[in-house]
Amino acid sequence: MILDEIKKREKGLEIINNKIREDGIDSIIDLTGLAGGFNISPEDASLLETYAGPAVFDEKIQSLGIKHLGGEKVLPLNRTTAGIVATIITYCPKNSKIVHYLAKKPGHPSIQRTAELVGADYIEYTSIDDLVIDDDTSLVIITGTTMDHEAISLDDFNRVITKAKELDKIVFVDDASGARIRTAVYNQPRALDLGADIVVTSTDKLMEGPRGGLMAASNEIIDNIKLTVNQYGLEAQAPLVVAMIHALEIYTPERIRIAVSQKDELIEKLQNLGLNPLATPTGFMFKEDAVMDELKRRGVTSDLSSDIIATVYSMLLLSNYNIITIPAVGMPGASKTIRIDWSANDSQKLSQDDLTEAINTTFDDLTRVLNDERVEEVLY
Amino acid sequence: MILDEIKKREKGLEIINNKIREDGIDSIIDLTGLAGGFNISPEDASLLETYAGPAVFDEKIQSLGIKHLGGEKVLPLNRTTAGIVATIITYCPKNSKIVHYLAKKPGHPSIQRTAELVGADYIEYTSIDDLVIDDDTSLVIITGTTMDHEAISLDDFNRVITKAKELDKIVFVDDASGARIRTAVYNQPRALDLGADIVVTSTDKLMEGPRGGLMAASNEIIDNIKLTVNQYGLEAQAPLVVAMIHALEIYTPERIRIAVSQKDELIEKLQNLGLNPLATPTGFMFKEDAVMDELKRRGVTSDLSSDIIATVYSMLLLSNYNIITIPAVGMPGASKTIRIDWSANDSQKLSQDDLTEAINTTFDDLTRVLNDERVEEVLY
Repeated sequence: MILDEIKKREKGLEIINNKIREDGIDSIIDLTGLAGGFNISPEDASLLETYAGPAVFDEKIQSLGIKHLGGEKVLPLNRTTAGIVATIITYCPKNSKIVHYLAKKPGHPSIQRTAELVGADYIEYTSIDDLVIDDDTSLVIITGTTMDHEAISLDDFNRVITKAKELDKIVFVDDASGARIRTAVYNQPRALDLGADIVVTSTDKLMEGPRGGLMAASNEIIDNIKLTVNQYGLEAQAPLVVAMIHALEIYTPERIRIAVSQKDELIEKLQNLGLNPLATPTGFMFKEDAVMDELKRRGVTSDLSSDIIATVYSMLLLSNYNIITIPAVGMPGASKTIRIDWSANDSQKLSQDDLTEAINTTFDDLTRVLNDERVEEVLY
Repeated sequence: MILDEIKKREKGLEIINNKIREDGIDSIIDLTGLAGGFNISPEDASLLETYAGPAVFDEKIQSLGIKHLGGEKVLPLNRTTAGIVATIITYCPKNSKIVHYLAKKPGHPSIQRTAELVGADYIEYTSIDDLVIDDDTSLVIITGTTMDHEAISLDDFNRVITKAKELDKIVFVDDASGARIRTAVYNQPRALDLGADIVVTSTDKLMEGPRGGLMAASNEIIDNIKLTVNQYGLEAQAPLVVAMIHALEIYTPERIRIAVSQKDELIEKLQNLGLNPLATPTGFMFKEDAVMDELKRRGVTSDLSSDIIATVYSMLLLSNYNIITIPAVGMPGASKTIRIDWSANDSQKLSQDDLTEAINTTFDDLTRVLNDERVEEVLY
């Protein structure tokens, strides 16, 4: 049997629509952590329809953005990547050297890619003792947190800044999630407060914002980069800015601290039930193989493929507990990992015990469905 | 006296807000042609808040986009420029040659800029007899209409395609406004129907859409360019796609045909009143000097600067006739040209005679204000 990804997705969306019709939107618990983040009020929508809108929103994003990132001026971008691209195009001439310090490789691919585009040399360092900054260096990049949200130490951060400033080099911090993890979880200062010249963050990482980037720096630097951004079509359009404004307005470090701290409790509760979840920065996950392993642990065998099993699990979690995870509703090809983001807004709708019980009981439900051969009925 | 651009703008917005409060939004006649084009319904807004939104909108933009531009697949972009940048990065290796045919120079600066970025040679041709396409050519670009909306002839278009296809070169049409002007006004076929491989258009040019770009081509080409677009952060985010969908849904060639045809009548009516407007593609304008000249013609002299005079005119047109033009409400530094876009949606709210009378009478009102020295009172 092969999984029909279109049909299972239609079924998943149908379940959600029925629940919303019958019990309202609040009955749905979206723990995907992938909500669009485009919170646009009707009021905003009508303002967006006027020539005046962008001006009004720019004023708001400036004050909120500077409050979040520091600096003199912010620049809303279509993507964090767009900010990396524009910064390198603006400050890295051909044959100059881009130096990148990161706690752990690999660096974000857009950095090396854009370095090649402008014909600049690109070197990554994971040890500060090896770090070489010389006259040919046009830009010093620091990655605030690794992709798995491991933060750079404050000491390392300061040492890179010091080395860069000895030769008066521009320091650009890719603080995609770091702008919140470093500050909210590790109580580190903001990148610009540490002496960096430019910082960019992702408004959809540990924030209820849209996929987009927000950059902060001095007026002069932002104006330089803004020119490049407009020349290459990398800026955030008005509705993105509106969504960023809302995200910054409702942002609190507390929710992240709570998610990160409660994550361990959640995982412990699951382990006490014999389950074996993998930790994520703000929650936990079961990869599709892990779902199979849990079935084996329960003495259940099935000749169905792991993507089908994981999707059935996700579908049961949705229909029985209103909890949305990606496999039930994801686009064709989307990951079949059961991922729970405890920093998602909807986590407020249930207790840790509610969640762990739902996760555990759904494995029982899955077992029954397999034994009763009701897989197709559940999926489509 | 120096114009206080902040205060006059506040006054202009205040006038609009009061009129909306008292007589409703329909009492306002926005002929700036600069409406945001972000028509997002509450329904869309809530869908935007879900992981499912983008998928739903992508389905719609595909069918509507292909209907508008042809081809197998479309790609919504953050800007038309973003599409130009991505296409050149995707298909133009270093030292290859980019050949650009356009009816009139200059070409869009983003083309040459990106050619330099990738290290490709770039040559513009305004005569097809001179046009050289050889083995080194990586991309043949055609500009569908010049910046002042002058369209390429169908014969020239076909000759460039033929030359390019003899050597099997990729043809990319920058049809920013051409996708509508060429088809709606000059009854030419769509670029892809003429044998071009890639076309990109601006969803805010002669369309009620957002600033953004929409590209169409074969599945293979779009998939190649889409990869670059995602790598550099050039894609249109969901709310832009929603706004494009609405713009495509309400688009009719008729409104453009009407505006272009009625433009000449409008200008003639104004000339019959002794006025001297400049033609624009879909309306007319008075530059700030032209406003001064009209005053002189009426035997009125003033030692006030032309930007103040034009702003007073714009303010009177707004307060007396509810017609919005940029000087009254524009950001500091915005043009003081009185520009009327007859293809704007709100042009349906008044007749040609209503408009020409308002334009003419406002010069009388302006004269009185100057004589009575009520300039400050009108501006702030």
